[in-house]
Amino acid sequence: MFIAEGPKLVQEILQSRNAELKNLYALKRWIRENKELVPTANVTEIEETELERISNLKTPNNVLAVFKKFQIKEPVVRNKISLVLDAVRDPGNLGTIIRIADWFAIDEIICSDDCADVYNSKVVQATMGSIARVNIFYTDLEAWLKEQPVRIYGALLEGKDITKMNAIKEGLVIIGNESNGIRRELVPYVNERITIPRKGNAESLNAAIATGIILSHLIS
Amino acid sequence: MFIAEGPKLVQEILQSRNAELKNLYALKRWIRENKELVPTANVTEIEETELERISNLKTPNNVLAVFKKFQIKEPVVRNKISLVLDAVRDPGNLGTIIRIADWFAIDEIICSDDCADVYNSKVVQATMGSIARVNIFYTDLEAWLKEQPVRIYGALLEGKDITKMNAIKEGLVIIGNESNGIRRELVPYVNERITIPRKGNAESLNAAIATGIILSHLIS
Repeated sequence: MFIAEGPKLVQEILQSRNAELKNLYALKRWIRENKELVPTANVTEIEETELERISNLKTPNNVLAVFKKFQIKEPVVRNKISLVLDAVRDPGNLGTIIRIADWFAIDEIICSDDCADVYNSKVVQATMGSIARVNIFYTDLEAWLKEQPVRIYGALLEGKDITKMNAIKEGLVIIGNESNGIRRELVPYVNERITIPRKGNAESLNAAIATGIILSHLIS
Repeated sequence: MFIAEGPKLVQEILQSRNAELKNLYALKRWIRENKELVPTANVTEIEETELERISNLKTPNNVLAVFKKFQIKEPVVRNKISLVLDAVRDPGNLGTIIRIADWFAIDEIICSDDCADVYNSKVVQATMGSIARVNIFYTDLEAWLKEQPVRIYGALLEGKDITKMNAIKEGLVIIGNESNGIRRELVPYVNERITIPRKGNAESLNAAIATGIILSHLIS
């Protein structure tokens, strides 16, 4: 199971057809305003002080819900673009990347086993609800990539200038760890190196920012 | 004055010609390895436990430096692209945006007075050193925008598709607050509305992600 907090995130997950609510703890006011959304059997009314005690947030926000983890589906990679994340360990980055994927209609993310846990509360919160719409699949990337029948693009140094590339309709896009990039063992599987050209002095871009930029050029 | 922590960030700021170091507190090891970088007069050797006590980081990292705030320069907006931030209140977002600007060779950011403080330690850390290379100017945006002689682009709903626009050589790009967008009072100053087209279901993009995507399309 996992925890989601705050009216917006909880509502987004409740509305998704993949979600299965176990328990929901909320202030009286929230319950009154969201009667249609939640079967009363799962709801416990609590006081502000109780919410503070169970919340992971600095500013607890009306409602905390416990959901069953989503069912993991084997990724389908044909006729679409999917993201592959190699050792994205920062929970905020992973959550933000899931939200970006959802913005660009990507519904599969394949994570290396050493990425942050998608059910870490910081990841869940940063997805802003997109966690319910994107299938997140953890695996041994080297073994997995070997078997894939589509073109593999990798964010690497000295690749093709992403701003000059044409949009693609199918393929896997690998984003590496911010400090170390894509691990050496995976590079042989990359069919096309892609690069965001640097104009100024910052040494690197955050992995989530790089993901946003790359997808906005590859997806039309 | 302001505080910067960790070897990488402190080194980046020390190497910038705008930086003026007041004091630096570091572990013996760091001092030994960075002799050329720091005038000994400003350096205090401390123990790990002392660093823990003065650090803002969860994992204190070798060195903490106190710098004088950078001199504020009146922005020059002709013949270049500059960023304008309206009520970007999240420190992590502001820091990340400064780093993105630096990546794209933008050297001026004009902030509304209600943006996060650039010297907030979370902002400083998130800039990864770019804070020393980008001029951050706080002002009353409405009064300021009125006086500007260049074209003003604003990230707004129902604008031109950013992925289909040509690169520009001059102009101001306004990024609004994530929840509320660009405040109503500023919209009349926008000469061109620009939009990142949404393909999927996420309701919005984080302000830093939007900045990265917009700049990567506008700057060539």
